[in-house]
Amino acid sequence: MNTPSSALDAELSALLGEYWRTDDVSRRAYGEDNSKRYALPAGVALPGTRQQVIALVRACRAHRVPLVARGAGTSSTGAVIPYQGGVVVSFERMNRILEVNPHDRYAIVEPGVLNGDLQRALAPHRLFWPPDPASADISTVGGNLACNAGGPHAVKYGATRDNVLGLSAVTGSGEPITCGSLTSKDATGYDLTHLLIGSEGTLALIVQATLKLLPLPAQHGSLRALYTDVSSAAAAVARIMAQPQTPSMLEFMDRACIRLAREVGGADIPDAGALLMIETDGDAATLPYALETIAGAANGEGLIALDDAPDDASREKLWAARRSLSPALRTIASGKINEDVVVPVSRIPELVAGVEAMAAEYALPIVAFGHAGNGNLHVNILFDPDDEAQSLRAQTALPRLFALTLSLGGTLSGEHGIGVAKREFMRDAFEPATLATMRAVKAALDPDGILNPGKVLP
Amino acid sequence: MNTPSSALDAELSALLGEYWRTDDVSRRAYGEDNSKRYALPAGVALPGTRQQVIALVRACRAHRVPLVARGAGTSSTGAVIPYQGGVVVSFERMNRILEVNPHDRYAIVEPGVLNGDLQRALAPHRLFWPPDPASADISTVGGNLACNAGGPHAVKYGATRDNVLGLSAVTGSGEPITCGSLTSKDATGYDLTHLLIGSEGTLALIVQATLKLLPLPAQHGSLRALYTDVSSAAAAVARIMAQPQTPSMLEFMDRACIRLAREVGGADIPDAGALLMIETDGDAATLPYALETIAGAANGEGLIALDDAPDDASREKLWAARRSLSPALRTIASGKINEDVVVPVSRIPELVAGVEAMAAEYALPIVAFGHAGNGNLHVNILFDPDDEAQSLRAQTALPRLFALTLSLGGTLSGEHGIGVAKREFMRDAFEPATLATMRAVKAALDPDGILNPGKVLP
Repeated sequence: MNTPSSALDAELSALLGEYWRTDDVSRRAYGEDNSKRYALPAGVALPGTRQQVIALVRACRAHRVPLVARGAGTSSTGAVIPYQGGVVVSFERMNRILEVNPHDRYAIVEPGVLNGDLQRALAPHRLFWPPDPASADISTVGGNLACNAGGPHAVKYGATRDNVLGLSAVTGSGEPITCGSLTSKDATGYDLTHLLIGSEGTLALIVQATLKLLPLPAQHGSLRALYTDVSSAAAAVARIMAQPQTPSMLEFMDRACIRLAREVGGADIPDAGALLMIETDGDAATLPYALETIAGAANGEGLIALDDAPDDASREKLWAARRSLSPALRTIASGKINEDVVVPVSRIPELVAGVEAMAAEYALPIVAFGHAGNGNLHVNILFDPDDEAQSLRAQTALPRLFALTLSLGGTLSGEHGIGVAKREFMRDAFEPATLATMRAVKAALDPDGILNPGKVLP
Repeated sequence: MNTPSSALDAELSALLGEYWRTDDVSRRAYGEDNSKRYALPAGVALPGTRQQVIALVRACRAHRVPLVARGAGTSSTGAVIPYQGGVVVSFERMNRILEVNPHDRYAIVEPGVLNGDLQRALAPHRLFWPPDPASADISTVGGNLACNAGGPHAVKYGATRDNVLGLSAVTGSGEPITCGSLTSKDATGYDLTHLLIGSEGTLALIVQATLKLLPLPAQHGSLRALYTDVSSAAAAVARIMAQPQTPSMLEFMDRACIRLAREVGGADIPDAGALLMIETDGDAATLPYALETIAGAANGEGLIALDDAPDDASREKLWAARRSLSPALRTIASGKINEDVVVPVSRIPELVAGVEAMAAEYALPIVAFGHAGNGNLHVNILFDPDDEAQSLRAQTALPRLFALTLSLGGTLSGEHGIGVAKREFMRDAFEPATLATMRAVKAALDPDGILNPGKVLP
C-alpha cells in the first residue's frame, strides 16, 4: 500500500502531529537509499520517543501496514526501500547521546545519532567506538547496527556486532524489549542483542543502544607493501595476522586498482600485482616496535617495495594511492556494483584470480580492494549504465561472483548486509533448514511480518 | 519420565547400539553435575555423528521425550540435570578436532573435545582459543559454548561468544542448521551463532563449532597491587582499563579473601582492603613497557604496595596468594554458593560493601574475588551444609545478592549461565516482554519444548 487508510492516517496524526507526513515531497525523499533503488511509502513517521515507536508499531500492526526503519539512507543493498509501501520510520529526531560513561567505557545513544558525531563526542574522553564504515560521517549508529557495519578498523577492533553491550527495541508485535547489559561479560539468558544486530530492521526497531567503547590510541603508523602477485600479498596477510601485533588496518588493492590509481588517479607508485596498506596504532613507545614487527611479517617472497610512514605527514602520502582509487573508479565508469564478499584470508588469491577471469570474460573492468585482514574484499563491477549490453553483463557477472565466493568457503556480505540486493542468493549461502530457522525466528519476533518485509530472507 | 517407552528404547537401541544405555549405573552417572544437584534420566545416548544426533532428536520429538545435552558435567548451575527425565545426550564420543587452520586462524571441532586438549593441540601452531574457565582441563568446548564460559583472559580476549565464527547444530525440531562462516567478518542473515551460544542446550544441540583462534603471546608479566580499600582498587581498575595496554588478566580479591589467604592459606602478603593481580602478555620487546604503563595506571590513591614479576618464577610467587584462596575456602567451610555476578567496574565498591554488610547480617563468611576488569566477581557464600540454620541463611542471602547486583546496573551471570539455579531470578533481570520474546525464540527453535526443559527461562 502506498497511501495510508484514513483511520491509520488519523491515528498517526494524533500520535505524531507534524512528524507524520504524507505529502509527496516527504514520501519521495524517504523512498530511496544509496543503492539507487526507489519505492514510494504511504507516509513518513519521525518519532521522538520510545513510547511513540511502541504506539506507532502497534497502530501499524493493527492495520497490517509495513514499517521500514531508516537511519540516514546510506544502505547500498536497498535495505530501507519501502517496496511494499507502508510507513517509513525515520529515526533522525532520536539522535541524542544519552550518556557517555568513561569509567565503565560505554555510551548509551539513540539510533539516529551519526557515527561521526558520536566519535567527536567521545574523543575528549580519549575513547572511540570501533565501527568506522566509509559512510561514518553521514551514517547513523542505528543504520550501523541494522547492517552490522564494519570498516577498516574491524581487523583489530571488530565490527558493529562485536562492540555493542545491549539494546532497547520494539518488536514487530509492538512489545518493548531490553536485552544485554552495561557489562562486558554477560551469560544471562538468550543473546537477543547480537541477533538484532545485522537483522536490518526485520525483527525489531532499535530505539536505544549501549555501545562498548575502547581507549583511543595516541598515534598511528603506516606501511605500504607492494607485491609481484596476489598470492604473495595474501601470504603476507596470513603472516601479519598470525603474530600478536595486530594491525589496526590491513587494506588490499589488486593489480587493476593499482593501475587505476596510477593511470587515472595519478598516484606515484610503481606498478605491482598487489598492494597492502597497513596501519598500526599505539604510542611513541610501542609504535616503532609494532611497525618493525609487522614490516618483518610483510617481508617475504614476492615483495617489491616496503615503505613506512611513522608520522602523520608521510602517512598521508602513503595513503594517497588508496584515496585516489574512488575518484578514479568514478572517472572510468559511472555504473558500479560494489559488493563486500568475504573469504578466508588464504583464499584471497583464488578470489582475485576468479575476478580477473570474470573481467576478461564479461569484458568489464572489475576491481577488488578492501579489508584483507578479514578477507573482506570490495569487488566492484564497473559499467556504463547507459549501455544496455554492459549493464546486462554486469548483472550477469554478479551471481558468478557470489558462487565463486561461496565455493571458496566465504560468505555473501562482510559489512553491507543483504537487503534486497543479495536476498535471493541467501538460498545459495544457507541450507533450507537454516533459512527455515531464520524464518521461524522472524515469525517469533514479528508474527505479522510487518517489519521491513521482503528484506534479508528470500 | 525416567524410563523410556519400549518403542523409543527399541529405536534408540537400533540407532546407537551399545551407545544407548538404560542401566542404573549409566543413568546415575549422567544425572548429576558440579552443582551437586541430581535427577535420574531415562537413558543416556552417546551419539558419534551429526546424523545420529539428528535421528536421536527426531525420535525423541516423535515421542515427546526431553533431551538434555551434556559435555563433561562441570556446570555449577544445574544446567545439565535431567529434572524431567528423558534422554541425556553426552557428546563425549564426538570429541575430534576436525581441522586446525593456522593460516586462517580457525579450528573446527566437535563439541566433546576438552578445552585443555584443544589448547594443547593449538600450542604448536602458536595459537590459542581465548576461553579459559577454571575448569578448562576437564570441561568441553560444547559446555563452554552452552554457558558462554569466560575465565580471566576474557578481559583482553573476550569470552566464548566473542570467539566463535560458526556452528552446526540440530534444532528441537530435528533440523540440522549451519550458521556463521569461516570468516572474521559476517553480515549475512540472522546471527544464529551468537544466539545459540549461552542458550544452554535449550534451543539446539551443537554438533560442530568453528572457533576463532588468536596468536599465542610469547611471554607474560605480572603485577600485584594492594590497596587500603575497594574504592581505591576499583578506581585503579578503571584507570587500567581506560588506557590502551589492556591487561591479559585483572583479578580482584576483597579484604575477606586476603585475610583467608593470609591466615588460612599461609600467603606471605600484607593485610589490605583489596588486592589486584594483573597479568600482561607480549614479548621481550613489549612486556617491560606494558608492565610499566599498567603499573602507572595501578598507582594512585590508596595504593599500599605494588610488586612486579617480569619473569615466570617471580610470577608464580605473586600468584601464590590467589592460588591459596580456593583451598582456604574449602578449609573454613564445606558448603559454598559460588555466584558470578557482573556489575559495571565503577560499581564494584558498592557491590563489595553490600556483600560485607550481608556477611555481617547473615553471620556467614561471604567473600568476593574474580575478574575485576569485566566487573565479574565470584561472590562465595560459605556455610556448613550440616548446619540447617546456616544453610537456610545462605539460601536467604542469595536473592539479596542478585537484588543488589541488579540495583547496581549489573546482571545475574558473567560466565556460568543460568541453569536452574538462577532461573527464577530472570524475572528480576528482564522485563516481562523481553522474557516473552525469549520464550517465543525458544518456541521457534524447539516447538515442542523437548530441549533441556526447565532451564534458563522461568
